[in-house]
Amino acid sequence: MPFVYHRTIRFADTDAAGVVFFPNYLTICHEAYEESLAEAGIELKTFFRKHDVVVPVSKSQAEYLRPLTCGDRISVTLTPALVGTDGYAIDYQVHHLGRPDKLAARLHTEHVCVSSVSRERGALPSDLLAWLKRHAA
Amino acid sequence: MPFVYHRTIRFADTDAAGVVFFPNYLTICHEAYEESLAEAGIELKTFFRKHDVVVPVSKSQAEYLRPLTCGDRISVTLTPALVGTDGYAIDYQVHHLGRPDKLAARLHTEHVCVSSVSRERGALPSDLLAWLKRHAA
Amino acid sequence: MPFVYHRTIRFADTDAAGVVFFPNYLTICHEAYEESLAEAGIELKTFFRKHDVVVPVSKSQAEYLRPLTCGDRISVTLTPALVGTDGYAIDYQVHHLGRPDKLAARLHTEHVCVSSVSRERGALPSDLLAWLKRHAA
Amino acid sequence: MPFVYHRTIRFADTDAAGVVFFPNYLTICHEAYEESLAEAGIELKTFFRKHDVVVPVSKSQAEYLRPLTCGDRISVTLTPALVGTDGYAIDYQVHHLGRPDKLAARLHTEHVCVSSVSRERGALPSDLLAWLKRHAA
Repeated sequence: MPFVYHRTIRFADTDAAGVVFFPNYLTICHEAYEESLAEAGIELKTFFRKHDVVVPVSKSQAEYLRPLTCGDRISVTLTPALVGTDGYAIDYQVHHLGRPDKLAARLHTEHVCVSSVSRERGALPSDLLAWLKRHAA
Repeated sequence: MPFVYHRTIRFADTDAAGVVFFPNYLTICHEAYEESLAEAGIELKTFFRKHDVVVPVSKSQAEYLRPLTCGDRISVTLTPALVGTDGYAIDYQVHHLGRPDKLAARLHTEHVCVSSVSRERGALPSDLLAWLKRHAA
Repeated sequence: MPFVYHRTIRFADTDAAGVVFFPNYLTICHEAYEESLAEAGIELKTFFRKHDVVVPVSKSQAEYLRPLTCGDRISVTLTPALVGTDGYAIDYQVHHLGRPDKLAARLHTEHVCVSSVSRERGALPSDLLAWLKRHAA
Repeated sequence: MPFVYHRTIRFADTDAAGVVFFPNYLTICHEAYEESLAEAGIELKTFFRKHDVVVPVSKSQAEYLRPLTCGDRISVTLTPALVGTDGYAIDYQVHHLGRPDKLAARLHTEHVCVSSVSRERGALPSDLLAWLKRHAA
């Protein structure tokens, strides 16, 4: 089942055009990713910093469909999928909540699992596999 | 009664030292400010962008007492005070929630009310006065 | 001829993993874009804010090949290409300067030209066409 | 002699009010600080991350005098001063370059020197003392 994250657009997300600065959609989706990991019992303090296995983003894609402005309520729907044995991809849909909700952006990130010591690719640890299983389509 | 805002520290808030980058404490406090204005019925979309009266930050101060890291749960306690008839100051206390909660930072901002047309100082509009009364010490 | 922009990686670009936070590659490429527009005589103050024609980013892609850390010297090589009569795409190559230089990331953005009044697509203005001609492959 | 850093205001520095978001003045001043340290031969990659001595910001202050917008050329003048034997303060003046230049902001940060192992205060290392001497008033 996809993970759903709710968020309000903040003044700091915006730029002088009055709308969310396009790189910040990736930042907002990463927040949803962090929240989904925390909910699965993964310790964020070490996951992104000192883990023996790290899972950096290798690729990202985004389609910006509608502008978002300060105060807008949004949802981010996150759906991960296993890629091989040592990576995963995440699809994100950002909706502007309203009557009706409207799709504002679609994003996609790819991640590879790497040993932080040897820098070689390695299998996903069991806690990430459990997180994947929980939220895969 | 002070306004209290809850927040999780995000990966995007941090820097290569592993902790929240110090200018981001101001950003986080501004989020609390936005949330308190929205709760008082003030429309954020126009308040920061097209209002006939704008209330820019003229000064800020911060004391950084404890580092915060990704995943930390925090509260921001916001207390505004009227300054003259055309400005206000806001005190912020950032607590790292835990057992026990610990004060992580103290911040202070000063705001002046200015006509967006004439750029002259002017009295605070009634909705901001109501917001101030609601949360003043 | 491609436009080349030079930049130092700043502490604010990094995250708790000690490297540039991946959305910030888009931010850095946008700086190169701004610099190339300014060099072509386009007034940035109005271009992104009050122009009668706006050219928002509709899509972005990125491949992150090597981490970058605070103090690294980089170059961003920007190559635009016309798409139809009312849009353009930009390819970016980010190199970590050293002996030898190493490709650190490849990015791509797509832009559509829109009337800021009618919100309908329209032909590119002559100053943007001149900018495109100057830097196209 | 003060250190002077030049910079162009970027779109990413701005917010929906069309001007530099106030916490970003601190970010811009930190860039000037980084540049002055690098110029004094201090290795940024380790200084902010893995040094045995770290010098976190303990306090900051800012006065915002004039708005800055995308494309503005600015200078940041940095003047450090020793505080006791284990800390320093830095004064920053941000000027909007033009005819004539105009003071846009004044900022101030305070730093304490701490062992990254024991977390106790300690004397400044010789490379920082040399940097201080070079740029003190």
